[in-house]
Amino acid sequence: MIREMILQTYTPAPIEGTFVGKHIVTVDQFAHKDLEILFHATMSLRKRVREHDRGLTELCAGRVMASLFFEASTRTDLSFQAAMRRLGGDVIGASNGVQFSSVYKGENLADTVRAAGCYADVIVMRHPQQGASFEAAYYLDKLNKRIDNPTVLISGGDGIGEHPTQALLDMFTIFDRKKKFDDLTITLVGDLRNGRTVHSLAKLIARYGVTNTRLAFVAPDSLRMPENICEIINTSGVETYETDNLMDVLDSSDVIYWTRIQEERFENPADYDAIKDRFIMTPELLKQAKADAILMHPLPRKHEMGTQSDHDVLDEDPRAVYFEQMENGMFVRMALLAKVLRGVYV
Amino acid sequence: MIREMILQTYTPAPIEGTFVGKHIVTVDQFAHKDLEILFHATMSLRKRVREHDRGLTELCAGRVMASLFFEASTRTDLSFQAAMRRLGGDVIGASNGVQFSSVYKGENLADTVRAAGCYADVIVMRHPQQGASFEAAYYLDKLNKRIDNPTVLISGGDGIGEHPTQALLDMFTIFDRKKKFDDLTITLVGDLRNGRTVHSLAKLIARYGVTNTRLAFVAPDSLRMPENICEIINTSGVETYETDNLMDVLDSSDVIYWTRIQEERFENPADYDAIKDRFIMTPELLKQAKADAILMHPLPRKHEMGTQSDHDVLDEDPRAVYFEQMENGMFVRMALLAKVLRGVYV
Amino acid sequence: MIREMILQTYTPAPIEGTFVGKHIVTVDQFAHKDLEILFHATMSLRKRVREHDRGLTELCAGRVMASLFFEASTRTDLSFQAAMRRLGGDVIGASNGVQFSSVYKGENLADTVRAAGCYADVIVMRHPQQGASFEAAYYLDKLNKRIDNPTVLISGGDGIGEHPTQALLDMFTIFDRKKKFDDLTITLVGDLRNGRTVHSLAKLIARYGVTNTRLAFVAPDSLRMPENICEIINTSGVETYETDNLMDVLDSSDVIYWTRIQEERFENPADYDAIKDRFIMTPELLKQAKADAILMHPLPRKHEMGTQSDHDVLDEDPRAVYFEQMENGMFVRMALLAKVLRGVYV
Repeated sequence: MIREMILQTYTPAPIEGTFVGKHIVTVDQFAHKDLEILFHATMSLRKRVREHDRGLTELCAGRVMASLFFEASTRTDLSFQAAMRRLGGDVIGASNGVQFSSVYKGENLADTVRAAGCYADVIVMRHPQQGASFEAAYYLDKLNKRIDNPTVLISGGDGIGEHPTQALLDMFTIFDRKKKFDDLTITLVGDLRNGRTVHSLAKLIARYGVTNTRLAFVAPDSLRMPENICEIINTSGVETYETDNLMDVLDSSDVIYWTRIQEERFENPADYDAIKDRFIMTPELLKQAKADAILMHPLPRKHEMGTQSDHDVLDEDPRAVYFEQMENGMFVRMALLAKVLRGVYV
Repeated sequence: MIREMILQTYTPAPIEGTFVGKHIVTVDQFAHKDLEILFHATMSLRKRVREHDRGLTELCAGRVMASLFFEASTRTDLSFQAAMRRLGGDVIGASNGVQFSSVYKGENLADTVRAAGCYADVIVMRHPQQGASFEAAYYLDKLNKRIDNPTVLISGGDGIGEHPTQALLDMFTIFDRKKKFDDLTITLVGDLRNGRTVHSLAKLIARYGVTNTRLAFVAPDSLRMPENICEIINTSGVETYETDNLMDVLDSSDVIYWTRIQEERFENPADYDAIKDRFIMTPELLKQAKADAILMHPLPRKHEMGTQSDHDVLDEDPRAVYFEQMENGMFVRMALLAKVLRGVYV
Repeated sequence: MIREMILQTYTPAPIEGTFVGKHIVTVDQFAHKDLEILFHATMSLRKRVREHDRGLTELCAGRVMASLFFEASTRTDLSFQAAMRRLGGDVIGASNGVQFSSVYKGENLADTVRAAGCYADVIVMRHPQQGASFEAAYYLDKLNKRIDNPTVLISGGDGIGEHPTQALLDMFTIFDRKKKFDDLTITLVGDLRNGRTVHSLAKLIARYGVTNTRLAFVAPDSLRMPENICEIINTSGVETYETDNLMDVLDSSDVIYWTRIQEERFENPADYDAIKDRFIMTPELLKQAKADAILMHPLPRKHEMGTQSDHDVLDEDPRAVYFEQMENGMFVRMALLAKVLRGVYV
């Protein structure tokens, strides 16, 4: 298969301080310095949005973003659109949803992406299959050699592959609330085997380089963090701790990153029943966390935060920062769009 | 249920001359003075659109509207988008239709609305369930306490609940064509039991306060205007007249507001057959109306205006103002958006 | 039927040098001079896009385009949106796809189009039924007599009817690469009986008026170019040549316009099997074409260009211009939008 060949051979350009014109498909492109640049720009842009600074709309005026969502994703989709608009840029997308467009009449991804590439300056793509973002970047490189106006790809997540902008907004939120990445216990909870969000976040923390920060992985034994991810983290000098019991780390965690345990992945319902209660965040449980801890969640949330009444109580707790985290998604994406399209200091 | 609790306890803020930052979910928020302000702004904006006044795009420049349509509605959807664009604002929406997005993977309305609230300045929401707009407003209030950039909700209709902007554009159209609300016979025809459009319009006329204006309700006995609406109207001093025979009032009506009788609501087809012919507007019927009457319809229309050939004849009649009514929808929504977002004199 | 009456009696206005306010529904509206004006504007706009000329956004600022796609079409849809945006105009569309909107609850096309006409300055419509664009234009004319802000229709293709903007972009691409329309052999390959793209292109070449240019039609006997199209072309003085064997003309063709043979149209699979191999463009086949030939394709492509690996080889050939052709689609549509909305020299 062509996609497998591409996944094995295509290396996206590392940022190395320069974002302009680079596809964003994996957190592996980011080093410490790149994250600093991005987070600095994010804070600056957030301030300017809140001040209703009209100069913002100069940053991407005249540029066009194509939204190619081959599967739905409310937050990624809406926040990228809002980000581009707030920078003065424009957004195009298939009027009937791209999943109903010619791609489903048999056109391959390579051609659909290049169609959007002919009309747009940047493509934000979400796709259900791992590696799709690498394939899209590979074919855009071919197109960019042919047409005058090169087009950049930003991945909005590809299947169980990566979701780099989610990891970037998660990192930014930790930095925004804790003002540091050192000297923290960051606890990731839930299905750590299949959750691309937690993989990318863990890798990004390792890539940033931290001192005296510990990653705690809380998961049922069958859903532990994959070994290759653990290895990357340990190699970077970050200490890790694994447990299937949240109580081991709850009262020492500075950051609690909650995710869903997907019941549907369990072959044996009894296995799920045996563990599920330890992986539901409730108001009672949050009482046992540190007074200055932050509770994060990539959303959407379901049963892993109890009922809607439980949500209502949790949401009132100042430690629950998942709405701010969601809002930060727009600001981080604004910074990324401005950087890859214009490269300007923002 | 949380929604029922909210419907019983949540009171949306009355306008009282100040629109800025207020959710728009029911006509009960509007008093005489508020309608005057809104209609004045509507006329001013309509004039400026027709003059291609470029200064219009300053009114909502840099502001973002999220379109959340959980069910389709061509006119409400397109006219709100066009309204925001013509004011210089931007529009975001789920690329694949919100009904396919995470809300349908199990996310509750409270969270989906708050996601949009993190990215947009105003949300226009259409929902098939009564009370959904109150619930959305309630949760946005919670979010607005947490984030710096408060978000306003405007209801685009929620099930058999209210459709406040339809009532506002209907009122404006009457005022626009008749130059007054006093001394009129306003006749509402069709399914007055289930039609939210006619409920809201009747309530709004009562709230405005009129002199010597009569509301005539023409409906089959089984589809009469609900008693609680009649009571509100009578309490306000507006005279009402009920009949199942259009001929009783056709030649004395100044405003004829036509709506559909939904065949599918009849348990017994014979009941429908017995009445249907008296509730179809045709060119022959319109001949019997006053020379200066206006014929309104919220659209879409089907059999209640006969065949497409009948439509073609009716459409040529200068008394048929439903296209102007439809166009006014955009202008009223422009006024509302400018008012809730900026509060400025427009 | 009303649509048939309209198709027989409605004559769209010829351009005759003036585009402003005219519906674009058929190539029959264009004469030599009109194409010259349009292609001149296209080149100018392309240059300005590539220079990131910010003055472009003045051309359609404050104007609104409604996208009504009753069937999906990635390229037509995205390129029209991008075209309008790059001219500074705005785009509205049904949030859930127009095919799910009230038109599918029984509203007729005449009313849906007029709803969009109340809010937008131009409507781009794609429809699966032949004649739909004529019907839409006919009813917009009626609406335009009623409201102050007239709305123009541009057809994005209607069933097996016409797809005029595809023919215009095809023509432009030939002119752009060959710098002339005279002294060429233009070869159209594939299903010439059912392909509206090749019909419109052939008619447009005839309307332009060319000297010493030959049209070669390569198709299986059962899928030959319809006689009425051949007659139009011959009447115009263009020489035609018909064959079912590409080899007869491949090495003398200056333009090779490839299209798909739709296997599903064959009643007898053996008939398809007997011819299919002569209608697949491959790298080996392209080797036998002239060194300065151009290979065009309206896209999307499937088996008629072999496998994805074949695509990859063909795409590298400088004679394969279908990506440039696709990109030109946006520029031609920009020129058309600017011309019908503003009429200004661009």
